[in-house]
Amino acid sequence: MRAIEINDGLILTDLPAPELKEGEVLVKVHATGVNRGDLLQAAGHYPPPPGASEIMGLECAGEIADPGDTGRAKGEQVACLLAGGGYAEYVAVPEGQLMSIPQGLSTTEAAAIVEVACTVHSNMQLAGLKAGDTLLIHGGAGGIGTFAIQYAKALGVTVAVTAGSQEKLQLCEELGADILINYKEEDFAEVMKNKCDVILDIMGAKYLEQNIKALAMDGHLVIIGMQGGVKGELNIGRLLTKRGSISATALRARDLADKARIVADTEKTVWPMIADGRVKHQLSTTVPLDQAAEAHRLLKEGEVTGKIVLTVA
Amino acid sequence: MRAIEINDGLILTDLPAPELKEGEVLVKVHATGVNRGDLLQAAGHYPPPPGASEIMGLECAGEIADPGDTGRAKGEQVACLLAGGGYAEYVAVPEGQLMSIPQGLSTTEAAAIVEVACTVHSNMQLAGLKAGDTLLIHGGAGGIGTFAIQYAKALGVTVAVTAGSQEKLQLCEELGADILINYKEEDFAEVMKNKCDVILDIMGAKYLEQNIKALAMDGHLVIIGMQGGVKGELNIGRLLTKRGSISATALRARDLADKARIVADTEKTVWPMIADGRVKHQLSTTVPLDQAAEAHRLLKEGEVTGKIVLTVA
Repeated sequence: MRAIEINDGLILTDLPAPELKEGEVLVKVHATGVNRGDLLQAAGHYPPPPGASEIMGLECAGEIADPGDTGRAKGEQVACLLAGGGYAEYVAVPEGQLMSIPQGLSTTEAAAIVEVACTVHSNMQLAGLKAGDTLLIHGGAGGIGTFAIQYAKALGVTVAVTAGSQEKLQLCEELGADILINYKEEDFAEVMKNKCDVILDIMGAKYLEQNIKALAMDGHLVIIGMQGGVKGELNIGRLLTKRGSISATALRARDLADKARIVADTEKTVWPMIADGRVKHQLSTTVPLDQAAEAHRLLKEGEVTGKIVLTVA
Repeated sequence: MRAIEINDGLILTDLPAPELKEGEVLVKVHATGVNRGDLLQAAGHYPPPPGASEIMGLECAGEIADPGDTGRAKGEQVACLLAGGGYAEYVAVPEGQLMSIPQGLSTTEAAAIVEVACTVHSNMQLAGLKAGDTLLIHGGAGGIGTFAIQYAKALGVTVAVTAGSQEKLQLCEELGADILINYKEEDFAEVMKNKCDVILDIMGAKYLEQNIKALAMDGHLVIIGMQGGVKGELNIGRLLTKRGSISATALRARDLADKARIVADTEKTVWPMIADGRVKHQLSTTVPLDQAAEAHRLLKEGEVTGKIVLTVA
């Protein structure tokens, strides 16, 4: 099968199709989402968990080419959460990581929403986000942000976002964001001081001190990215005064049972929000699989709003 | 009424008895527990929350002298969680912070267990501690530690403790601790590396890095004291690899509804553990109220295991 290999760049090559293990189906990939984790893996910083495919690609949509021992129907269209392997014509997927295609979406659009939906929903559940809360989302115009704004508004949450340009903030506003902060012009910690019940953070160390300042009483900071560094000073005294919590999470290394639980719960909660229009896909750009390097360049440069998807079949 | 005032030392003085607000009862104090928060308040570092008594004392037991508008019976024996005011003959207590005297305990023994029981139970609930987990308790021989060991064993948890002497570790072992670590001789982070589902910490900054190392996957560090400093370096990368969480909490500043919920839940969960002998009080020393300064000295020097209680009436 055709697949992208990391070999002094991203090279389209011919590889053997994956062999199915117990409880897995073979999916013929129509489209696969591009995530920051793929950039990290291409740079050698994010090795796949033990037993996972060495190929990049954390989500895809397509059709079942071989149902293995699962009793699924050949040809069934599915969206898939992957531990890896999406940048290829075929991928082996544990049955617990299969979702239906959300009503009204194409497979290409579906491939843009699996990872963000599972990531945002599982983390907001961890943080106990609920109607009436105030949520701060960093990078509101990115793949995670554009989804998280709509998801939180559907839950009845007040949403604040940070972004680096007026254009990006305008997109956030169109998606429903209530409070718009240009981080190049304002200190978000001052604007949101003691106000945030939950913060969804992709910056890590660089924002740690400001995020703690922005937390409300019993607030919860959830860190899912470290674009601003790994090590930061934590003021435990300030955290204690607020009875605050910090969690740092990632989806990829979770075990099969944990992923199956998250996938089922995300489908149950988020897919209806898509079906009735409260949450719209944020697919912004499609790029053919053989131009994966160009897709990575677009994401790295940070000028894309929403998601980039590689089209395969 | 007689009460202890902070005035260039701890001085027994005469103060007006407190006036009751709506929903409060007046309790005639028999005994009041001594906590590290009292030491901090005496040193000027832990002011009472707005509206609370200026007098020290975070827990007591005694009898209802005036039921106010609550419909309680005059003379009823009660144990009380306080925002302050225990170092006195009388204290006003919101009804939601009244508990029964645990079966088999004297009022003096009950005054030694309210704060630790509410603190440990509420924090272990926050951390999701459950049977089969491994819990690391720092300061295993102290007031919090001696209670937490027994509480966790009653839940079916594997308990590791740190302490600074063989004698203290032996007490921890007698209370049920499974893994004994003398922090002067061993690095607890090496002994417990990647093993702790929950850590109950009183050291703050000094132990932050080691605590993160000791966390297991999905582990939760709960910080309830900062005897080792306020600001520490947090390795977010390591926390994320483990999908770890950190919470820092305190009981005193919680609002009335929150305290009432914790008090009711603690009585329901912990009092039966005391009644059937799974958890024993750890009252080690009683000191008359007028010698409060001596009680503080004993706690500060750190040579006491278990709890110190001031006897009032």
